[in-house]
Amino acid sequence: MPSPFAGPGASDGATVAPERDEAAVARAIAALAPVFGDRLTTNSVIRRQHGQTTTWLANEPPDAVIFALTTEEVSTIVRTCAAEGVPVIAHGAGTSLEGHVNAPFGGISVNLSRMNRILAVRPEDLDCTVEPGVTRRQLNEHLRDQGLFFPIDPGADASIGGMAATRASGTNAVRYGTMRENVVALEVVLADGSVIETTHRARKSAAGYDLTRLMVGSEGTLGIVTAITLKLHGIPESILAGVCPFPSVEAACQAVITTIQCGVPIARIELLDALAIKGVNAHSGLTLPEQPHLFAEFHGSAASVAEQAELFGAIVADHGGGTLEVAERPEDRSRLWHARHEFYFAARALRPGADALATDVCVPISRLAECIGESLEDLKQTGLIAPLAGHVGDGNFHLQVMVDQSSPEEVAAVKGFLKRLSHRAIAMDGTCTGEHGIGQGKMGYLDEELGGGVAVMRAIKHALDPAGILNPGKILGASRWIHPGEAVPLAAE
Amino acid sequence: MPSPFAGPGASDGATVAPERDEAAVARAIAALAPVFGDRLTTNSVIRRQHGQTTTWLANEPPDAVIFALTTEEVSTIVRTCAAEGVPVIAHGAGTSLEGHVNAPFGGISVNLSRMNRILAVRPEDLDCTVEPGVTRRQLNEHLRDQGLFFPIDPGADASIGGMAATRASGTNAVRYGTMRENVVALEVVLADGSVIETTHRARKSAAGYDLTRLMVGSEGTLGIVTAITLKLHGIPESILAGVCPFPSVEAACQAVITTIQCGVPIARIELLDALAIKGVNAHSGLTLPEQPHLFAEFHGSAASVAEQAELFGAIVADHGGGTLEVAERPEDRSRLWHARHEFYFAARALRPGADALATDVCVPISRLAECIGESLEDLKQTGLIAPLAGHVGDGNFHLQVMVDQSSPEEVAAVKGFLKRLSHRAIAMDGTCTGEHGIGQGKMGYLDEELGGGVAVMRAIKHALDPAGILNPGKILGASRWIHPGEAVPLAAE
Repeated sequence: MPSPFAGPGASDGATVAPERDEAAVARAIAALAPVFGDRLTTNSVIRRQHGQTTTWLANEPPDAVIFALTTEEVSTIVRTCAAEGVPVIAHGAGTSLEGHVNAPFGGISVNLSRMNRILAVRPEDLDCTVEPGVTRRQLNEHLRDQGLFFPIDPGADASIGGMAATRASGTNAVRYGTMRENVVALEVVLADGSVIETTHRARKSAAGYDLTRLMVGSEGTLGIVTAITLKLHGIPESILAGVCPFPSVEAACQAVITTIQCGVPIARIELLDALAIKGVNAHSGLTLPEQPHLFAEFHGSAASVAEQAELFGAIVADHGGGTLEVAERPEDRSRLWHARHEFYFAARALRPGADALATDVCVPISRLAECIGESLEDLKQTGLIAPLAGHVGDGNFHLQVMVDQSSPEEVAAVKGFLKRLSHRAIAMDGTCTGEHGIGQGKMGYLDEELGGGVAVMRAIKHALDPAGILNPGKILGASRWIHPGEAVPLAAE
Repeated sequence: MPSPFAGPGASDGATVAPERDEAAVARAIAALAPVFGDRLTTNSVIRRQHGQTTTWLANEPPDAVIFALTTEEVSTIVRTCAAEGVPVIAHGAGTSLEGHVNAPFGGISVNLSRMNRILAVRPEDLDCTVEPGVTRRQLNEHLRDQGLFFPIDPGADASIGGMAATRASGTNAVRYGTMRENVVALEVVLADGSVIETTHRARKSAAGYDLTRLMVGSEGTLGIVTAITLKLHGIPESILAGVCPFPSVEAACQAVITTIQCGVPIARIELLDALAIKGVNAHSGLTLPEQPHLFAEFHGSAASVAEQAELFGAIVADHGGGTLEVAERPEDRSRLWHARHEFYFAARALRPGADALATDVCVPISRLAECIGESLEDLKQTGLIAPLAGHVGDGNFHLQVMVDQSSPEEVAAVKGFLKRLSHRAIAMDGTCTGEHGIGQGKMGYLDEELGGGVAVMRAIKHALDPAGILNPGKILGASRWIHPGEAVPLAAE
């Protein structure tokens, strides 16, 4: 019996032009149009809005967009597309950064933003169940009166379905974990249109394979998430945030390492380099000195927060950092984090007119200072403007490269830098993406990072979606568009 | 194209007698004998020791046992067995409870206990990498001098490989999570003998499918774990443990719910019912009043621990509980937890001569009091002796049913009770097993619990182990023993 992992593992990101069956697409649309009425559209503006819009990756619109309202409707769409071999791409808030929502082989984009009901909040169990179009801000507005919050915070007001699909995290992950740790259970529409629940609502289970974690981060390539049960947390009795300057990025990283090692249960610890501070000052009207800063936040009882802040202050001082300037009032704290979350726009202010290319990598924290240091030196050598912000408690950082796309030399320089950045992180036992995902943009690094693991992913993809209709051309490279009835290879072609 | 999930999902636990190919087994043993010398044995005593020994499930010994020393050796064994279509069963410390190590179709048991090197400890990254035969006590002994510990604590001195394979948890899970949250990365030998790493060592990653979580809890049916990278934690500055009595199990459960809801970061919170206390008193020489008790432990700074204990004490009083009797000295604390961990033997002391059948279920915490209450009433009606101990912060509890196996009536009564217990937990949106796993013992409940999800599990199993050689007859029911070259159905037969 041939090995199920014997297929070539290469996924170099090149999208092999698929054999596109326009007639099949037309049949699928014709079958779905009477069901969805004006919630199915082939309007070119709307189609373009459903392709990639957040970065420089080319916009690849779907053939049609359907605004779904129920799980049954999503199932109907997938079943119809499966019968015709037409791609189906899930679309949440459209805030992903690596081309996840693009339709390189055409097909139908399922817009889930109108599936935005909060189905249940269960304070006793500290969990809730929501539809995929609920956004994290909408959820937190809804929870506030009950003294609860959902901590995962990727910056943009992403949809919960999209956050589950990309394994999102953000500033609070150092304390509360990522979507990996905070999704309890999922309802998923599979490639044949059938609907499953990945698990029940108990906090832990040893019953079979962890389908929840398999779906979290699968970027819509194994199923479409139609309901999400999430862990919630009580709003802390006390919250204290503050900023402190450092003489160097390295000193700031060392302070972070010590903080984590000492077991300070810090809720947020974010690094901004001098360039990022310059942008944030200009964009958000802060007056921080133009040097690296840590933004930190502590959650707990009043006594615990005070104790954490004191210990953190001492660690900062040990590493040559300045005084922790505390934002105790909620409005000051909001202003601080608003400035951090406006990093994207602040970066743009550093080079008006240029496009922004947001990327992220993640390394073991012991390698963080080295990885950041080499990357900043690389940028200097390359002559690029790219402010840095990072969830450094996790070893995860972002660079926002500002690029003039009308200059082929500059585009080439940026591409070279991005390649070196991923290679560097992978070589340091890290990953080419800590939270943005693979999508289309990082497919070229997956083999280098995971080797034989990619063959396992391919085997799973082929087992669960043999025709390759679910978000093809993402994570594992170009999917063939296999016609109904055609023989399906078990491993990669 | 037929749906990949169209196969019958039924896994009723009946083991269809496979076509057993004695000649193939003989060929595999003949091929491996020269490589392993006296580390390969067909001694019947040793073979029996490698079947199920901890509960009443029948002992089903393998045809041979090999004591492996390296990943390459495990790969050689799997490759050889794959060529002959012979089952391979991973064996760690043999402490599993649901028949995971049994060889219902014969084959070769790979004993990993001699792969017990601690490969690396990285205090800066709060992680370590170990071979699968390292036990949790061995690891914690090794870590102590560095001020670190590994929190997952399933009671028995299980091997880390086995704990990863069964998604083990235990008393500390309420604060530190289970193996699901604490495994960073795995090295795994796949069904064709190839070796992969599931991911790199960064704390988080959004690069492709979560193969780590897929392997954790797969019970050796998708691969054999040969190295594990684990998260570590700093030994808390301060630890305080204590016990307090309650007038009823329900009052104790309500106190637990409130404690969790209030966000007390409690490290352990364990319920023992009156019967369990009686056993523990007799076995470990404690003198607790024979009523339900909570055993609790707090970790943190001295101030934080005092604050947590005070808040907990107030919650306990609100629910009619007695004073928290504190064990502050390490030796008192050890005595307390030793008594809790000796629950298995304490239970046996309640009915000398009878066999012990340990089972576990897990429900959302809001249903815990109800689930426990109904189960204790059921036991009373059935006339069975079964003390209760539970990791109640997670909604997870154990019953240890004492049974005289010479009485068919009693065996039937116990089986009926176990069935009702699982049905009850599943109906309450819980699981038939929070931490023991499915193995052979709980296969009959998986369809009821997960329905269509089981078909997804089957599709994955067939994709990654098409010949069904990896620990067949576990989780998903009887695997067919497919001969090399035979056509493999994509979904379940």
